[in-house]
Amino acid sequence: MTSIVAVTAHDVRFPTSLSMDGSDAMNKDGDYSAAYVVIHTDDPEVKGYGFTFTIGRGNDLCVEAARQRGLPLIGRDVDEAVADLGGVYRDLASDSQLRWLGPEKGVVHLAMAAVMNAMWDLAARRAGKPLWRLLVDMTPEQLVDAADLRYLSDALTRDEAIGILTDLAPTRAERIADLEERGYPCYTTSAGWLGYSDDKLRRLLQEAVNEGYRHVKLKVGANLDDDIRRLRIAREVIGWDANLMIDANQVWDVPEAIEWMKHLAEFKPLWIEEPTSPDDVLGHAAIRAAVAPIGVATGEHGMNRVLFKQFFQAEAIDFCQLDAARLASVNEILSVFLMAKKFGVPVCPHAGGVGLCELVQHLSIFDYVYVSGSLENRVTEFVDHLHEHFVNPTIVRNGAYVLPTAPGYSAQMFDESVATYTFPEGAYWASR
Amino acid sequence: MTSIVAVTAHDVRFPTSLSMDGSDAMNKDGDYSAAYVVIHTDDPEVKGYGFTFTIGRGNDLCVEAARQRGLPLIGRDVDEAVADLGGVYRDLASDSQLRWLGPEKGVVHLAMAAVMNAMWDLAARRAGKPLWRLLVDMTPEQLVDAADLRYLSDALTRDEAIGILTDLAPTRAERIADLEERGYPCYTTSAGWLGYSDDKLRRLLQEAVNEGYRHVKLKVGANLDDDIRRLRIAREVIGWDANLMIDANQVWDVPEAIEWMKHLAEFKPLWIEEPTSPDDVLGHAAIRAAVAPIGVATGEHGMNRVLFKQFFQAEAIDFCQLDAARLASVNEILSVFLMAKKFGVPVCPHAGGVGLCELVQHLSIFDYVYVSGSLENRVTEFVDHLHEHFVNPTIVRNGAYVLPTAPGYSAQMFDESVATYTFPEGAYWASR
Repeated sequence: MTSIVAVTAHDVRFPTSLSMDGSDAMNKDGDYSAAYVVIHTDDPEVKGYGFTFTIGRGNDLCVEAARQRGLPLIGRDVDEAVADLGGVYRDLASDSQLRWLGPEKGVVHLAMAAVMNAMWDLAARRAGKPLWRLLVDMTPEQLVDAADLRYLSDALTRDEAIGILTDLAPTRAERIADLEERGYPCYTTSAGWLGYSDDKLRRLLQEAVNEGYRHVKLKVGANLDDDIRRLRIAREVIGWDANLMIDANQVWDVPEAIEWMKHLAEFKPLWIEEPTSPDDVLGHAAIRAAVAPIGVATGEHGMNRVLFKQFFQAEAIDFCQLDAARLASVNEILSVFLMAKKFGVPVCPHAGGVGLCELVQHLSIFDYVYVSGSLENRVTEFVDHLHEHFVNPTIVRNGAYVLPTAPGYSAQMFDESVATYTFPEGAYWASR
Repeated sequence: MTSIVAVTAHDVRFPTSLSMDGSDAMNKDGDYSAAYVVIHTDDPEVKGYGFTFTIGRGNDLCVEAARQRGLPLIGRDVDEAVADLGGVYRDLASDSQLRWLGPEKGVVHLAMAAVMNAMWDLAARRAGKPLWRLLVDMTPEQLVDAADLRYLSDALTRDEAIGILTDLAPTRAERIADLEERGYPCYTTSAGWLGYSDDKLRRLLQEAVNEGYRHVKLKVGANLDDDIRRLRIAREVIGWDANLMIDANQVWDVPEAIEWMKHLAEFKPLWIEEPTSPDDVLGHAAIRAAVAPIGVATGEHGMNRVLFKQFFQAEAIDFCQLDAARLASVNEILSVFLMAKKFGVPVCPHAGGVGLCELVQHLSIFDYVYVSGSLENRVTEFVDHLHEHFVNPTIVRNGAYVLPTAPGYSAQMFDESVATYTFPEGAYWASR
């Protein structure tokens, strides 16, 4: 028997604000950070790694919340726990005192994501499989038992969920073979940060085209003239056959979003991302009606499954951009995938930051193989930053994620990276 | 010139779980707590006090978040700051790194509430007025400058807000005189906690009737047979002319809420409160359509103004129960009052916990005098717990809040209470 003996949480921050990587209309100077969780067992070979993602200040709040979230795990038998990750999730979520601080949103929910991500990593390692394969090998009933369906039964019943997961079973193997052949398609945001010069933008876009990307994304929303100039450059470089997406990072009110988009429509964006408050279901629905055929996308700040349920019910979005470190891990993400399938909305997960690509590739692969069965209108974000800190980094070839093969959720960072960038006492920060 | 020299935050917890005060279907063992903020200036006579409310574990997260939220205040001139509380609010809210952790929800937003509550207290003390009077003496333009209208313009424009605030100006003095005469009507939840025995329930309900209350509220949702028995007792004691409200504290899915309420309809509740997830705008709208003429109420977990905007737009609620320590203080609450007026929804604020009654009385008074102009269907929660820890406690007479007269927002606790109940090192907790 192997038992969990400790759950440690680490405040790891990378100084990305120095290079303006990640700059957009709302977030001018983020330091990409992870509240990084390690689940320790009495076997030094058996550990689980997970994290949530933040952009700097306040990462310490998530670290402390994750430490508190993880306390009920201590003493549990590993094999019993990984065999019932739905039960583990419900046990952690049932802390009504911590629940008050959300419920199911903000710091305490980010901390749930970090801890449960580490539990899923532990489960996949224990099974000797990459996470996507662990999920693919689970039965529909096992998946639904793990999923958090609370508050969703007006949109998705348990029976419907099992039906969705059963429907595509006969062709699962074909889709795995398909992905092994060509990978899961991704798009790049590395070119389009707002803080980059026109020359750098042009150069990076050309590189993206050369690397085989068919989708690129630019940040917009700070200044209309700048947006028009940058989108013109983008179309010059990528042409009109490739897909151009734009992202306003929540800067607009609803009427402002509709008005601003009138001026950008000529560049035929595939989607406008985060046009307004991420909480505004009805606002997104109004924007979607006004800007069609331009699609509306949101989700990186989508706080929980109840919000996504409403986005689907209100027909408010064309693309669902769930985040692997904001939703409470696979348990909650399963529910969103299932609802997206039922309502016919493609899931194009948010990634970037630090480690989000490493996580999200597993989710998109699972979605295609087991839930959606389709790659149409599906493309997962990729940003080429900070992968060097991960033991099993994402590999992208020809604009597609290569299927991960190492056991786990790809969430483990190198010990040296954690030590160097731990805030504030790690070598990097201590020397500043 | 008086300057802010420090913002301290204190983890104050009261052991209410011992007596089952506050027990309901979701929250079985809360320890009512405050992340209590003191703004210190270089004049020892000039301080501001505020807090957010939690139910125990995780209060430390709000305390640390409040400390971080308050840092930009240090060094500011007091008179300049209190003359521009809209500017102060926007300055604090503009921290994009902390914003990522919400945005505008959860721990970082609760911390904004605590800090801005202390700033409003400081402003009212500086003016020598109770907060409600400070607000009543502001012009419509000053109020709208202080309000957070971001993301609301599809529901409420600045001009509309000024119009609403101007409309009732001629009769403001009459309403102040009216309240000075009879107070602001309240209802009591003290009788109805789920953990109380039938005998205690009956006794407390009789006391409420004897004290002049025309509204009482009971917790429901844990067990249908218990609910029916307890509601029958309630109607026996209070009769059928008094108003009976019930509160499920988010335990149901949408279809379950509708089904359960069929069995409680015979007791003619005025409202069902928190029937499902507090985030579920469309779910509340569906429940409301199904349970009419029973009203639907929610808001104590209403995370921000964007959520309330949607409750109004979707016609999802009959009663708006905003919380003075969850919304980001007067700045955000002003916007909710204004939208409620425009959409014709009465605001019946949540209170109870620790200190929420002390805050919320000011808000309801302001609402009646300046915004709603009506007491119809309006009643503010009152729970008779923990007032003894406040320097200027709420006074309730004949089922109505007596107008506060002391300068400030009534948020100051006795130093001895803070010291005794500071967690974990205060005398009470250290001895356990």
